[in-house]
Amino acid sequence: MNLPNHVTIIEVGPRDGLQNEKNFVPTDVKINFIQALKRSGIQEMELTSFVSPKWVPQMSDAGDIVQATLGGGRDIVLSPNRKGIDRVYETNCKAVAIFVGVSDQFNKKNINKTTAEALEELAPIITELKERQYFVRACISTAFYCPYQGKVSLVDTINLCKSFANLGVDELSVADTIGMANPREVYDLFSFLKKELPNILITAHFHDTRKMALANVFASLQAGIDRFDTSVGGLGGCPFAPGATGNVATEDVVNMLEKMGISTGVDLSKLMEALDIVEPHISRPIQTGYHTLHKLEQTTQH
Amino acid sequence: MNLPNHVTIIEVGPRDGLQNEKNFVPTDVKINFIQALKRSGIQEMELTSFVSPKWVPQMSDAGDIVQATLGGGRDIVLSPNRKGIDRVYETNCKAVAIFVGVSDQFNKKNINKTTAEALEELAPIITELKERQYFVRACISTAFYCPYQGKVSLVDTINLCKSFANLGVDELSVADTIGMANPREVYDLFSFLKKELPNILITAHFHDTRKMALANVFASLQAGIDRFDTSVGGLGGCPFAPGATGNVATEDVVNMLEKMGISTGVDLSKLMEALDIVEPHISRPIQTGYHTLHKLEQTTQH
Repeated sequence: MNLPNHVTIIEVGPRDGLQNEKNFVPTDVKINFIQALKRSGIQEMELTSFVSPKWVPQMSDAGDIVQATLGGGRDIVLSPNRKGIDRVYETNCKAVAIFVGVSDQFNKKNINKTTAEALEELAPIITELKERQYFVRACISTAFYCPYQGKVSLVDTINLCKSFANLGVDELSVADTIGMANPREVYDLFSFLKKELPNILITAHFHDTRKMALANVFASLQAGIDRFDTSVGGLGGCPFAPGATGNVATEDVVNMLEKMGISTGVDLSKLMEALDIVEPHISRPIQTGYHTLHKLEQTTQH
Repeated sequence: MNLPNHVTIIEVGPRDGLQNEKNFVPTDVKINFIQALKRSGIQEMELTSFVSPKWVPQMSDAGDIVQATLGGGRDIVLSPNRKGIDRVYETNCKAVAIFVGVSDQFNKKNINKTTAEALEELAPIITELKERQYFVRACISTAFYCPYQGKVSLVDTINLCKSFANLGVDELSVADTIGMANPREVYDLFSFLKKELPNILITAHFHDTRKMALANVFASLQAGIDRFDTSVGGLGGCPFAPGATGNVATEDVVNMLEKMGISTGVDLSKLMEALDIVEPHISRPIQTGYHTLHKLEQTTQH
């Protein structure tokens, strides 16, 4: 079994995770949280999101977050459009995530554009970002299934990935947005993408809605993927399935990989310290495997 | 990727699941539950356990359960010792599960015997069962890790499996009792066992304590395993990690396999009807992926 020796974790808790949290997490808590994540060994992270404070009040402190936490690794901010990008230019952040779904129906519901229209709007922004030497991460939502359209065509996903690659993005984060992909589909898509796009970073992004996330991580490893988006504590819900779990948990991915002899550079005990900072502000209980056992151990010891 | 076309599910909810449930589930509920599981397409099932009613009051109605539910597939009763076996002989059940851990320390804590002593006691029982043409299933606990000893030697596990094979058992159910094995270890052990013991049924038994259960199912499939012990609703805890999830859920395994194009013969909607029967009597919330989404869908529709 041919598996990588090292995997890079892209922590998305502070952005993708908190963006789905209904309670406003105070800015200083977010800053402490991000700094603690960095101390745990996280080298790449989505810090925050430059989106409309009206629509996403949770991210209204994006400027302050970036100013206070920048440095020590690849710090990424998400920005959905021109307005957001202009706000990024006011900061010292040099890595930007943009996003689009493969599914037309998903994009229509989210940004009131078809996939082609979204790509058309993003193309000049990507060109500009690359001219300014930004790191550009393209987040590809609904790469397998769409909550409105159902199964998404593999060909559509591959074509969209190629379009972004041709535009010069540095990274594709390919997401199973509603946690419905199975390991066979995951292996097939990622094997193909790794072969077709050898010169671009390809990252897999899974949700644990149907408990298949770690199976999909394992399938991805076999397809040559060595980068995963994860969220500490599994922070982040799926807006289309309230009650269902959200992002795959950083601690569960790191635990599995390290136990398999695959290094991540992340210290699990320090990672749990980071989670402790934000947990009191989160409205849902943290139910990840590693965190549950970790808390149990602490209770037993004290 | 070479995967089987069909997988056999061995439902262990009524035995392994309920045995760990602190509330006594009324006998008629258990009977309805088992019958509903059979209607969902389950062909092999651990019905109950002939153990001391003093130590395991939950299983004190074993005789009634067997009498009321026998028929239509492979019905298995668990029996730990001579006393239990004699009670099995009084029934029409023709399949018996016996169990032992690989780890000495685990066996000492559980049955106050070393592994060698346990094997010595079971050997004549197995011979007798085979002479009487019973189906014998040997459940091998702590095949990867032990809660007391830590990592279990692969060699010890393989040797114990071979000893049981030499005694003539029909099936080995090889268990990651505390949900700690990772997919690489799982692939390695099961690949080896499939090669070394080609004439015996080999079943994998996983717990989802660290969220790796479906990853381990996927690893097992690649190692040629096509039989899995699962428990509907994830019933059954791990006595060594209260609050941690127990057996991998039948519905999550079936959902993943069917989505991968691997048939199980199990109807998910009927399986959820079976779970509905027992759920009101279970002290812990059911938190499996498929069940959560299924309930959500029902709420949305009504």
